[in-house]
Amino acid sequence: MSKYWSPVVKDLVPYVPGEQPKLDNLVKLNTNENPYGPSPRALVAMQAALDDSLKLYPDPESVELKQTIASYYGVRGDQVFVGNGSDEVLAHVFFGLFQQDEPILFPDISYSFYPVYCGLYGIASRVVPLNDRFEIDPADYEQANGGVIFPNPNAPTGRFLPLDQVERVVSANPDRVVVIDEAYVDFGGESAVALVDRHPNLLVIQTLSKSRSLAGMRVGFAIGDSELIEALQRVKNSFNSYPLDRVAQAGAQAAFEDETYFRQSCDGVIAERDRVTAELEALGFDVLPSRANFVFARHPLHRGDVLMTGLREQGVIVRHFNKPRISEFLRITIGMPEQNDALLCALGKMV
Amino acid sequence: MSKYWSPVVKDLVPYVPGEQPKLDNLVKLNTNENPYGPSPRALVAMQAALDDSLKLYPDPESVELKQTIASYYGVRGDQVFVGNGSDEVLAHVFFGLFQQDEPILFPDISYSFYPVYCGLYGIASRVVPLNDRFEIDPADYEQANGGVIFPNPNAPTGRFLPLDQVERVVSANPDRVVVIDEAYVDFGGESAVALVDRHPNLLVIQTLSKSRSLAGMRVGFAIGDSELIEALQRVKNSFNSYPLDRVAQAGAQAAFEDETYFRQSCDGVIAERDRVTAELEALGFDVLPSRANFVFARHPLHRGDVLMTGLREQGVIVRHFNKPRISEFLRITIGMPEQNDALLCALGKMV
Repeated sequence: MSKYWSPVVKDLVPYVPGEQPKLDNLVKLNTNENPYGPSPRALVAMQAALDDSLKLYPDPESVELKQTIASYYGVRGDQVFVGNGSDEVLAHVFFGLFQQDEPILFPDISYSFYPVYCGLYGIASRVVPLNDRFEIDPADYEQANGGVIFPNPNAPTGRFLPLDQVERVVSANPDRVVVIDEAYVDFGGESAVALVDRHPNLLVIQTLSKSRSLAGMRVGFAIGDSELIEALQRVKNSFNSYPLDRVAQAGAQAAFEDETYFRQSCDGVIAERDRVTAELEALGFDVLPSRANFVFARHPLHRGDVLMTGLREQGVIVRHFNKPRISEFLRITIGMPEQNDALLCALGKMV
Repeated sequence: MSKYWSPVVKDLVPYVPGEQPKLDNLVKLNTNENPYGPSPRALVAMQAALDDSLKLYPDPESVELKQTIASYYGVRGDQVFVGNGSDEVLAHVFFGLFQQDEPILFPDISYSFYPVYCGLYGIASRVVPLNDRFEIDPADYEQANGGVIFPNPNAPTGRFLPLDQVERVVSANPDRVVVIDEAYVDFGGESAVALVDRHPNLLVIQTLSKSRSLAGMRVGFAIGDSELIEALQRVKNSFNSYPLDRVAQAGAQAAFEDETYFRQSCDGVIAERDRVTAELEALGFDVLPSRANFVFARHPLHRGDVLMTGLREQGVIVRHFNKPRISEFLRITIGMPEQNDALLCALGKMV
């Protein structure tokens, strides 16, 4: 460690994102991007933002974008927070809401950025094992804690916890913030935004990187009680006044205004997910029931790391986590039909 | 305070950016934006980035942009860090380098975000008064500290500290990081990047929001020894893997590749700054010698807040800081010649 570093830096264990390969000829099914591109209306809106006005700072509060999101979900503008991707929103959540006197809780199998944020801000955590069907059991979250967070659908399992069970977790922790990270909810889940007006301790996080095909533009948001939003605003305004650039604000807003395209692309992903699931099962895989734009699958006769490497040799990249309980699984993003065919063909040669 | 907030949130005092008015007919000289638009080449590069590939995450490490910046300044790629505006870069600097056992030092009159970062991360600070000509005196930084930071040219004074004096501060603090915040250096200053290879404790911060007219796109960077850069990388990768979107990376890179346009627009600003300074002096103002794209001026017979309000009534907005030692001053961004004429005409009616 350098003598110039803050001591905390020495112990940071950064998040490792999925590979972004430079090779164009790979079938890239490793980072849960949407196979469909952004809405044409979003592209047009971003084109229109590319002019002399880029010399000016963007709206620091993204007022129009927040209002668009608020209208879309039937909440008020002061119930919406936006950030530079949902990862930045989550970072502010950990800083602004989870620095408490008791450990926060999240599942043992979950988004692997959560323990990284804990390391960054010195937040204690306790992992709660999923049950043996890789499901979240609400009863497990009825214990002392400094806050609760889990993805729904969960990642990398893809399993969805029904809203009545989400509400059970929220209701069991009235003095703590419960954060539902809904990056994948639009692919067949049901959003807990419907519950925010009943629960001042519920915060819902979403992103435009998945269902709205704007991973390249970095926009995420949170919806919840205005007091929770105010905490995030305070942290954001003590960190970076202008997290969203002009083009990102314009594109994100237009993406919410193109419901037809949004539905079509989500439906396309869902249809392919169901087909891929059936074909993987025909190849002998166990596939967890997914409501996300990926599936989590293992083969009883073949190691996960071996399959991943074999796929890579055939030009298909998927994600494998060398972690307890899930090292036998592959996380496979749902791509375009021809990409999925390439995956299935390549797997067919190995199993 | 909400019971759901992390306790630290209660005491946060956020930075207040200059107003971004919605009215198009205002002469906006309040946030130090460049009156010239971005390079046409940057606009073309951003246009080219607006396609289907926005469904994919950007390069998390902005490798090409870093290499472009490195080549421009004659350093290695591992001596460059990029962030979502220099404000984000500064936030990571405070977190990753300034959490030390002694207070950091910065001038009493300086960028008002520095104490905000201190508040966010619980960093102790000690302000060092500028001398009575509003200059930084290097001798004042020869005292125990946990790090040093100042803008050069300083903001909001516009005064530039010559490089030999910058180096004196750096040399006097070999065990501490000295950060030179060069947001305005391209308007007639001289960059301390020339010193980084001699001083492993020197970090230079710059932005594309001023001289490169991309405030709307949010790109900033740091240059220094690779060990300092590694600290920032670790913090960034524990906070947000993908801080720069695809369009911002493309535009920033192209902006560095259009040296002719860059020089022309900086020269245009400098010429107007000299003219505005002379005309303000003709109106009786004291104008601090500026190497930035703004001037800091006071009138011996008129209060700063009164002048600011009077300008606003005439459709010209400038910045006024209601703070000790500088409450009599106006900070006036250098605009296009016709904007500057409007400012001078409006002031002429008041003084």
